[in-house]
Amino acid sequence: MTTSHSNIKKNRSSVGVQIGQVCIGGGAPVVVQSMTNTDTEDISATVQQIAHLARAGSELVRITVNTAEAAKVVSTIRAHLDDTNCHVPLVGDFHFNGHKLLTEYPDCAQALAKYRINPGNVGHGKKRDEQFATMIETACKYNKPVRIGVNWGSLDPELLIRIMDKNAESSNPKDAGYVMREALITSALESAAKAEEIGLRRDQIILSCKVSGVQDLIAVYRDLAACCNYALHLGLTEAGMGSKGIVASTAALSVLLQEGIGDTIRISLTPEPGGDRAREVLVAQEILQTMGLRAFAPLVAACPGCGRTTSTYFQELAENIQSYVRDQMLVWRDQYDGVENMTLAVMGCVVNGPGESKHANIGISLPGSGERPVAPVYVDGQKSVTLKGDNIAGEFREIVDKYVKTKYSKKVANG
Amino acid sequence: MTTSHSNIKKNRSSVGVQIGQVCIGGGAPVVVQSMTNTDTEDISATVQQIAHLARAGSELVRITVNTAEAAKVVSTIRAHLDDTNCHVPLVGDFHFNGHKLLTEYPDCAQALAKYRINPGNVGHGKKRDEQFATMIETACKYNKPVRIGVNWGSLDPELLIRIMDKNAESSNPKDAGYVMREALITSALESAAKAEEIGLRRDQIILSCKVSGVQDLIAVYRDLAACCNYALHLGLTEAGMGSKGIVASTAALSVLLQEGIGDTIRISLTPEPGGDRAREVLVAQEILQTMGLRAFAPLVAACPGCGRTTSTYFQELAENIQSYVRDQMLVWRDQYDGVENMTLAVMGCVVNGPGESKHANIGISLPGSGERPVAPVYVDGQKSVTLKGDNIAGEFREIVDKYVKTKYSKKVANG
Repeated sequence: MTTSHSNIKKNRSSVGVQIGQVCIGGGAPVVVQSMTNTDTEDISATVQQIAHLARAGSELVRITVNTAEAAKVVSTIRAHLDDTNCHVPLVGDFHFNGHKLLTEYPDCAQALAKYRINPGNVGHGKKRDEQFATMIETACKYNKPVRIGVNWGSLDPELLIRIMDKNAESSNPKDAGYVMREALITSALESAAKAEEIGLRRDQIILSCKVSGVQDLIAVYRDLAACCNYALHLGLTEAGMGSKGIVASTAALSVLLQEGIGDTIRISLTPEPGGDRAREVLVAQEILQTMGLRAFAPLVAACPGCGRTTSTYFQELAENIQSYVRDQMLVWRDQYDGVENMTLAVMGCVVNGPGESKHANIGISLPGSGERPVAPVYVDGQKSVTLKGDNIAGEFREIVDKYVKTKYSKKVANG
Repeated sequence: MTTSHSNIKKNRSSVGVQIGQVCIGGGAPVVVQSMTNTDTEDISATVQQIAHLARAGSELVRITVNTAEAAKVVSTIRAHLDDTNCHVPLVGDFHFNGHKLLTEYPDCAQALAKYRINPGNVGHGKKRDEQFATMIETACKYNKPVRIGVNWGSLDPELLIRIMDKNAESSNPKDAGYVMREALITSALESAAKAEEIGLRRDQIILSCKVSGVQDLIAVYRDLAACCNYALHLGLTEAGMGSKGIVASTAALSVLLQEGIGDTIRISLTPEPGGDRAREVLVAQEILQTMGLRAFAPLVAACPGCGRTTSTYFQELAENIQSYVRDQMLVWRDQYDGVENMTLAVMGCVVNGPGESKHANIGISLPGSGERPVAPVYVDGQKSVTLKGDNIAGEFREIVDKYVKTKYSKKVANG
């Protein structure tokens, strides 16, 4: 069965925004982005993490620019990355003092490829409009795109009160959820309209309206997508830790992406202490790839095991093969075209083993309890060899290597 | 903002199936189930894992019944569980020899609450129909419901050829994906029709058609749901290991559940060697809860951290609180009504911290770098106390405990 993409709705038509060499919206594939959690002032740690995130596949990396010292070092961070041939565009995250930092540190304003402005955190009353305008003017001056990033955790309180009052006076008042959604969307759209008035072009504006609840996010983005053609940045905010963060983010984003909504995604996972920040990149890629929207690295289908697969041998093999292809992919992607589309299957017994293996490019069906201790390998749906003995993992990896070399065409070296 | 469930489609109308005290379909909440990976013949290990899965929240537990020895011990396993007050219904998974085992071991047939029959693995040619009929007759005799569980890894090859031939002769032949989907659905529906002819009632039949690709699963279940009113068991087969298995399962199931499709779910994760089998139960619960379909345990919203939250302190606090409420839930769920709906927020800085915390039942906003080292706590949207010093985690847990005791009503003790 070929994967049927036809049930994904055609992407909502949005105005494309160019950020360095990356295009968001306008029909471009959905872009993966992430954010550092190092202190931006710590140049070395920040450079290292940006490079790590980029190597994992982050196509944009956001850093907080929260202090004068942070703003001062942004251009140095950019230069260090460029020196090591890491050209991933950097996005500056501004709250409260962005107007000052962008004005006082022109090197920072220039080194960043995009600014994220949160209209709920730009000041109050009259200052709000002035400070917002200052940032947009800087964006215009340096020809930089802007994400107007609204978050229900920092929604402009004056705007919320205005929308609530309007609702209360309405002959048909809506529930609190509806009012909150309207406030989020109004904040994004009014800010975008102001930015355009000031001179930012529509192809320099990306919008986001993040909330932390799955159904709330679906409702907000359906409405937002329906009422504008700005490129949309999609993400569940404060998704949390462990599988809960992964599940909540995937549930919300898959429903929206399936409807053609979303031009770039960021997965806001809380790392476990000592956890790898690049996990948010991996999960973003896995969402896009398992949904059939993009391909990044070979996917391994593996059965969950049951009482027929009593040994942990097949779990070890599945883990071994999954990490092997992930590591190799860093090499293969520069050498071969299309390896990222390869599918593998590691199966634990005869029930679905041969069948699932035949559906993959390469599959191995290990013997369950009571079966003969041999493991048939299937290549492109045909039985190839039968492995046995102590080095099944090594021999299977060799088959994978050989398949990659013969199946995928060599990339022409650059330059 | 109250969570807006209104964007979930009303559940597809299906015929409810009673399995012990659990109802699947017919408007009942979506049921969580899982499967053991111990050798069923190992009574002690199997009893222990079933109890572990049930305690984690699995409302049905499936075990493989693959050998005579396994069939012999099923009633003992059931008895041991009952002795320890674990009454979770057991489902027997049969392939190849189910007709023999169910006939020869009536204690097994009686002790199981449901049989899973894979119509692709019941034999070939004339034997196929006879052996299938034997199992259905046993189900009728013992008044047991049956899941007719089709899997693309073990699809009846004769049926597939028949559907392919029919397609080849058609004036408007369809693609391979369509043909595979039609074969899967045909296998399920024809088997169900045969079961009903033999005497099984429609309210004793559950269907599943599992494949390992997200878009394929969505397409299969949309078609299957549209053309019958049997209760549906939903799961992505061979989802794989680590975050890939979680992401693929969540992506497929959330799109379908959002459309009101699915009466029970099983998440087929490959555990890492030594990994906890109950993770598949946790992920199933997290899918249903984050989507707003059911509630099992308090959810913790936590920010991903960034350069403003340079210490790992808030990651540790988020982890501490998340595991604390999960552990406590085992006690709370017997004592208080509704605690599973409680929401918590652990936030790392002032950007979204107070706002997100106000949206939760209880939220704490830790100081980011450069902020005053104090952590305001919000209860039901109102600022309550401000924590500081070395025991913030302990004091926050006390606030949570106190909230549970005062907010949720005591359950009336049974008996």
